[in-house]
Amino acid sequence: MKIKSPHLVVPGKKVSLQKIDAAQTGKLKSEADAQTYLQHHRKDLDRLQEVLYAGGEHGVLVVLQGMDTAGKDGTIRHIFSGINPQGCDVTAFKVPTPLEAKHDFLWRCHNAVPPRGMIGIFNRSHYEDVLSPRVHGLMDKKTAHAHMDQINRFEEMLTENGIAILKFFLHISEAEQKRRLQARIDDNSKHWKLSAADFAERKFWPQYQDCYEDILERTSKKHAPWFVIPSDNKWYRNVAISEILVEAMKGMKLRYPKATVDVSTLTL
Amino acid sequence: MKIKSPHLVVPGKKVSLQKIDAAQTGKLKSEADAQTYLQHHRKDLDRLQEVLYAGGEHGVLVVLQGMDTAGKDGTIRHIFSGINPQGCDVTAFKVPTPLEAKHDFLWRCHNAVPPRGMIGIFNRSHYEDVLSPRVHGLMDKKTAHAHMDQINRFEEMLTENGIAILKFFLHISEAEQKRRLQARIDDNSKHWKLSAADFAERKFWPQYQDCYEDILERTSKKHAPWFVIPSDNKWYRNVAISEILVEAMKGMKLRYPKATVDVSTLTL
Repeated sequence: MKIKSPHLVVPGKKVSLQKIDAAQTGKLKSEADAQTYLQHHRKDLDRLQEVLYAGGEHGVLVVLQGMDTAGKDGTIRHIFSGINPQGCDVTAFKVPTPLEAKHDFLWRCHNAVPPRGMIGIFNRSHYEDVLSPRVHGLMDKKTAHAHMDQINRFEEMLTENGIAILKFFLHISEAEQKRRLQARIDDNSKHWKLSAADFAERKFWPQYQDCYEDILERTSKKHAPWFVIPSDNKWYRNVAISEILVEAMKGMKLRYPKATVDVSTLTL
Repeated sequence: MKIKSPHLVVPGKKVSLQKIDAAQTGKLKSEADAQTYLQHHRKDLDRLQEVLYAGGEHGVLVVLQGMDTAGKDGTIRHIFSGINPQGCDVTAFKVPTPLEAKHDFLWRCHNAVPPRGMIGIFNRSHYEDVLSPRVHGLMDKKTAHAHMDQINRFEEMLTENGIAILKFFLHISEAEQKRRLQARIDDNSKHWKLSAADFAERKFWPQYQDCYEDILERTSKKHAPWFVIPSDNKWYRNVAISEILVEAMKGMKLRYPKATVDVSTLTL
């Protein structure tokens, strides 16, 4: 897949998250400006998704990763509300169930991969399995790298079978996370969203960033690229992601299928 | 569930589809008029769905049935585009796979039932299993009625476990179906949608209507009511269905969950 984007993680290249400004907004001057672009992209996506569904030759897998509060849920809500829910499946991966934990870590993800014709969105993904255990010292580097090799081969197999993969790391600054958590504390109506675990995990910020850099470097591939999306501004995030999706789907040369019946033989 | 609607099939009452005008538009004067109502209902649905998802105490199962071209896909597209795809699952039931056919007919449906917190939409459903085989003489009346009893008990169990069920029969006239099929023949870009089978099934119109009447009479229950939606006018159909959904979800007294953590202990 060839996609021009300043946010592409070029395969094989080192990534330094600290050097990527999470608050940048590119060509966009304001939120109002962004709304215009987003509406435009949503219309394009809606149209492209219809042909994807009708054609049934390709599927699209969108992987969303990021620190807590980075905006995974908001991305889904803002970009994918508006397209036909019949062609779009969201899977939110939580702590593995006992059955899932007895399987290899790719098992539950494979089961949730979108079939051809569908857009599938992973809200968190198989990348969690090489992230949190490593941050907490439950997985050594060698094992993590072996798992990433397995991920690369798994994703390669999927793309060879018609599933386009686009992976987005929602990049926020530590200061922005603090602001967002504080906003949840300050807003009574959002207290149900708070968990002590999110606050505890925050202490591991540097370790998470290190692990993410390693993941981005090792698993951004031509067939399944990562994009680091500056996400301190939600409106920039939405435009950047939707723009990449539209470009990717346009590049897939989607088309409606041919008629399967000789129309002249049909009578009413 | 108590829902006031002129389209409700009152449990135990006889249904005559021929006596229900498929082209009626109730209080709505025009399509423009309908758009205003639909936008309003979509906003309500979006809000209600968010609380449903957050609360996680109830789920909603929407069953869509109707003759070919009655508008099942269009209903999904027009009513549910716009709500968060993360809280909404669509299952389109096709001819059973060999594995599905080896199971009881409720097996694949049970598997697709929405979990609490979600809206699940069945595009066709377990009702197909007491419909098409019966129309074609592959299932006798006694068996069909036994299966409907099983359906009633199954749906009752679901509602007792927190899943609200709303069932919509999209009622079109035979003349309107003819117009819609002719429109597909006339439009080259829609030929991929045509199948010879749809045209063959059309010859069984009276048998289908009879079977549907039997289904509506026997399986419209207080806990899982059927609504016969006049669907010759797509815009009326969309308003009528979304209105019932909104009323049903408002009646569920949904609420955000309480905080699970003592907020005063959280520090940043």
